[in-house]
Amino acid sequence: MSEYRNMTKEQLLAEKANLEKSYADFKAMGLKLNMARGKPGPHQMDLAMDLLKMEDYTASDGTDARNYGNLEGLEEARALFADVMGVQPQNVFVGGNSSLQLMYFLVSIGYTFGFQDSPCPWSQVEKPKFLCPVPGYDRHFRITQEFGIEMINIPMSPEGPDMDMIEKLVAEDASIKGIWCVPQYSNPDGYTYSDETVRRFASMKTAAPDFKIFWDEAYIVHHLTDEIIETPVLLEESRKYGNEDRVFMFTSTSKITFPGAGVSALACSDNSMKYVCKRFEVMIISYDKMNQLRHVRFLKNKQGVLAHMQKHRRRLAPCFDAVKTTFAQELTPCGDIAHWTNPKGGYFISLYVMPGCAKRVAQLCKDAGLVLTGAGAAFPYGRDPEDSHLRIAPTYPSLDEVEKASVLLTVCVRLAVVEKLLEQAE
Amino acid sequence: MSEYRNMTKEQLLAEKANLEKSYADFKAMGLKLNMARGKPGPHQMDLAMDLLKMEDYTASDGTDARNYGNLEGLEEARALFADVMGVQPQNVFVGGNSSLQLMYFLVSIGYTFGFQDSPCPWSQVEKPKFLCPVPGYDRHFRITQEFGIEMINIPMSPEGPDMDMIEKLVAEDASIKGIWCVPQYSNPDGYTYSDETVRRFASMKTAAPDFKIFWDEAYIVHHLTDEIIETPVLLEESRKYGNEDRVFMFTSTSKITFPGAGVSALACSDNSMKYVCKRFEVMIISYDKMNQLRHVRFLKNKQGVLAHMQKHRRRLAPCFDAVKTTFAQELTPCGDIAHWTNPKGGYFISLYVMPGCAKRVAQLCKDAGLVLTGAGAAFPYGRDPEDSHLRIAPTYPSLDEVEKASVLLTVCVRLAVVEKLLEQAE
Repeated sequence: MSEYRNMTKEQLLAEKANLEKSYADFKAMGLKLNMARGKPGPHQMDLAMDLLKMEDYTASDGTDARNYGNLEGLEEARALFADVMGVQPQNVFVGGNSSLQLMYFLVSIGYTFGFQDSPCPWSQVEKPKFLCPVPGYDRHFRITQEFGIEMINIPMSPEGPDMDMIEKLVAEDASIKGIWCVPQYSNPDGYTYSDETVRRFASMKTAAPDFKIFWDEAYIVHHLTDEIIETPVLLEESRKYGNEDRVFMFTSTSKITFPGAGVSALACSDNSMKYVCKRFEVMIISYDKMNQLRHVRFLKNKQGVLAHMQKHRRRLAPCFDAVKTTFAQELTPCGDIAHWTNPKGGYFISLYVMPGCAKRVAQLCKDAGLVLTGAGAAFPYGRDPEDSHLRIAPTYPSLDEVEKASVLLTVCVRLAVVEKLLEQAE
Repeated sequence: MSEYRNMTKEQLLAEKANLEKSYADFKAMGLKLNMARGKPGPHQMDLAMDLLKMEDYTASDGTDARNYGNLEGLEEARALFADVMGVQPQNVFVGGNSSLQLMYFLVSIGYTFGFQDSPCPWSQVEKPKFLCPVPGYDRHFRITQEFGIEMINIPMSPEGPDMDMIEKLVAEDASIKGIWCVPQYSNPDGYTYSDETVRRFASMKTAAPDFKIFWDEAYIVHHLTDEIIETPVLLEESRKYGNEDRVFMFTSTSKITFPGAGVSALACSDNSMKYVCKRFEVMIISYDKMNQLRHVRFLKNKQGVLAHMQKHRRRLAPCFDAVKTTFAQELTPCGDIAHWTNPKGGYFISLYVMPGCAKRVAQLCKDAGLVLTGAGAAFPYGRDPEDSHLRIAPTYPSLDEVEKASVLLTVCVRLAVVEKLLEQAE
């Protein structure tokens, strides 16, 4: 097979006919596959079922975890998440089943009340803005969009977001109030920010005294290779420069135990903790401490978490491998029509197809029974300026299904590219 | 013993000396008692432990309750709460462990975005206001205070809040955006709104098109007598007048199963449900459906809930009885120095002492090791204009402790009143 970009119109037409036949065959199979969301599969959730076998709910401080109280979370739960995140227990707030909800609250608090270091609530800033490394996590962007906070795209590289651009923007513009980051195994590229990137986030000068880094460590222990990648801890790194109040770190067990019934956590400075608790205590008496205790007794500490994650890895690595191998086999021979990331952890692979083709690929997949995240979803306002990016989530389907879906996906990519090349040849 | 108000100064001084001796005896006991919060005791939580014995988490629609999804809650959980609240399942949203958090979100949504029927967000109204039947629930009032919403006191009676006053205010003032209500076994008086009161809430004309009734059915099945009191269902009643969009009903299992790890629910109109979900889906993917399923399998339906509540009642009724009996024995003979409510359900007894004495009583109790809710807490801004009200929560301590605490409390009331009468005699 020759490379697509070198094909004559006749060759492209012939290839199109071939691909349409393959596509029709897939369609005839009546598939129902979903690679849209970073959703663990049943075999992953089964790994944590022993967590439920617990009868005594007396916490280490002697209190009854079933009752009201303890807004910041159980002592032992704070210790567990401190261990995982590399911070001190007194800097950890343990929440409910959703770290997204913690992020939403914090944006909402910034917007409505401001933080302890805010000159005024963000709602009173003329045009409050957030920086958004792209591609990124759609649910992050939807929160800032909900509050009418303007979003500025920041290009990503394997080292992290473009720090030159970020440093320049935040130094100049006091209306830039924050940034969304997934520093380890980024959603969706799977990149891990370099030590230098983390250091620059910790030390950079910001025009806004209340600039906040939303540092979502969703995949901090979600390694897919033998390599246990660890980066400097932003909260501790920021302390060295007196900038610890700018950091909100998040994590959760959604992709460790149960996606819908895990435990979330926030890490922040002493000042921020004091302020955040003052706001949170108006909203809730305490989060579900029974679930916190179950998680602590089951996972124990960071070492226990890592041991558990190794079981996940055994089940996930083959699915990621299936996608990447199929891409290499089916797309590489077609020449420069697509490239993809090779994550060492996390939940996603980014697939970049020839500009102008991503939406068409997603539609073709959908029509053949394979649901992907909507093209463009990884960009603020759902707008991928290149119409090139697709996020692949290979965790939920079975390995057989992932194998089948990957082939179908490559057929759709090739078909969309051929269509586009023919269109351009007109 | 003659009535306090008829005593001479000498008699009062003698009585004071007696009481001070009793008080000193209590103090010497080094008590550590708490009747501050409506907190179930361990023996109540033990009743629900079988709820945890569950292994299969497949919901009735075949989905896996452990995973992401189903923002509005599991079908069977919506059906359970619909049965308890007397509404349709499609009008129920099942949340996390805190109905307070649902209330906070809704106020926050009204403030930041407004509702589907709002001319503008409440934050853009010059002086947004809420009506607050008093005494009421301190945590309700703190939410509206947090958002700078002005609170207007509405007097309570055994029939509910003063509806003449409410109807007049809401008809005239479009900046009045809502009201806090605990319609059944009100916090703290234990009154149940009359059918006529409910009907007037459903039918009244409001100047604000986006007026919202926060109808907190925290104690809807928390009967303390044989009588199963049921009132018209506000959401259904409002439908008759085309006013169903004004209603947000809340309930939770916090005082049915586990205070810190129960399940909360919201009931509202079709329009409101659609709007609320649109806002909520930005914040959270889904609440803890494993806990929802556990609750459904354990409680089954309203009949199951009522059967379970009968077990609570057996443990709580004696505690309420101890308080009321002690009050009658120790305070009634002193004449017109205090009166109290006689709730048929709920979690509290209101004690009204001679005006100007409540703060002093709470302080005396505290100094002798008995913590009460801060005097004034049941009023907006913590200000009881009469300094007369105390909220008694007899559920958490053991019966022995309640008996002891009640006697101590009456000693403190009598001492504070004698002090006040002596002061007035100066």
